Amino acid sequence: MIETVADADHAHHGYITDKDKYLNRLRRIEGQARGIHKMVEDEKYCIDILTQISALTSALEAVAVGLLDDHLRHCVVDAARLGGAEADAKITEATQAIARLVR
Amino acid sequence: MIETVADADHAHHGYITDKDKYLNRLRRIEGQARGIHKMVEDEKYCIDILTQISALTSALEAVAVGLLDDHLRHCVVDAARLGGAEADAKITEATQAIARLVR
Amino acid sequence: MIETVADADHAHHGYITDKDKYLNRLRRIEGQARGIHKMVEDEKYCIDILTQISALTSALEAVAVGLLDDHLRHCVVDAARLGGAEADAKITEATQAIARLVR
Amino acid sequence: MIETVADADHAHHGYITDKDKYLNRLRRIEGQARGIHKMVEDEKYCIDILTQISALTSALEAVAVGLLDDHLRHCVVDAARLGGAEADAKITEATQAIARLVR
Repeated sequence: MIETVADADHAHHGYITDKDKYLNRLRRIEGQARGIHKMVEDEKYCIDILTQISALTSALEAVAVGLLDDHLRHCVVDAARLGGAEADAKITEATQAIARLVR
Repeated sequence: MIETVADADHAHHGYITDKDKYLNRLRRIEGQARGIHKMVEDEKYCIDILTQISALTSALEAVAVGLLDDHLRHCVVDAARLGGAEADAKITEATQAIARLVR
Repeated sequence: MIETVADADHAHHGYITDKDKYLNRLRRIEGQARGIHKMVEDEKYCIDILTQISALTSALEAVAVGLLDDHLRHCVVDAARLGGAEADAKITEATQAIARLVR
Repeated sequence: MIETVADADHAHHGYITDKDKYLNRLRRIEGQARGIHKMVEDEKYCIDILTQISALTSALEAVAVGLLDDHLRHCVVDAARLGGAEADAKITEATQAIARLVR
């Protein structure tokens, strides 16, 4: 089998082993977003809509933390082994992503 | 035209004046969720996916704060005028929704 | 007894009934902040410091939600009864405070 | 000079190079906590207290993100070079700390 550049590129993207898990969770998240749209359309009670928004936000945060874990476990660890500027850059990038999530 | 109970009920749901604005924002949010699903499917770079998740979370928080503002401005103000247990219950309910968003 | 302007002013600040509860919680929060300073000074393990920062942030959020509840229950309800521009301004102010906490 | 185990242990705690910066920031955070206590004691306006709580929370989050960056840059990178179970454990630990901050 011929390994293409794309395959090699995929191979170092850390979340690939759990891809189906993420796709399922994101499909559920899309459904939640559609459900909230429907609630506003049907003029459901405001507090019930807020409860669904909180649930959706939590689901998104769980996906983000999962992706970050995979990223640290693969990309950052690989970069750490190479060391030097590449490792530094990967960690700066990861920290900035974490800062956006924490804020 | 006969006003049904449901119409009367809708009438006191505060976000109704801005319904189209919310529906547009929620349609965009659905699109963002679909985009993130596609990014994972296409195995885009993890950090770029995290950036989109942060953007989606911010968009959801903005909708939540907007709905909460409308809710305070209408339901809570109406209950406050009636006073008593009803007003207390509405505020407890609003505070619990805020606590879920802040957490 | 002469009621001063300050007393009258206090009277409409909603959190006053629970003042001791808040003061105790805030004293504990000060202690937590001092403890984190000491942990860095003593070069404790980074993850343990992060755990304490998360605990302190949660404690602060709980105080904020409590103060907000009191504020809605008193200032906002009072303004709602008066109605008009005053009520609108109070709710805008409360929503902005909520937005800062949610973000 | 005899290097004790404790010194050696300190040496691998990543934040040490910026210790003074962290101590200064944490001293300021203690001052902010004390200021919020004083505001409640003096019965300042609730919304102004909430603004100070938001500022304190942001300051704490910035310290947490800084410590996490240092932690990734040192402890996690060191563990990554060793590899194996140690690296995995360090990343699980870091992810759990991130999850507590994001939530």
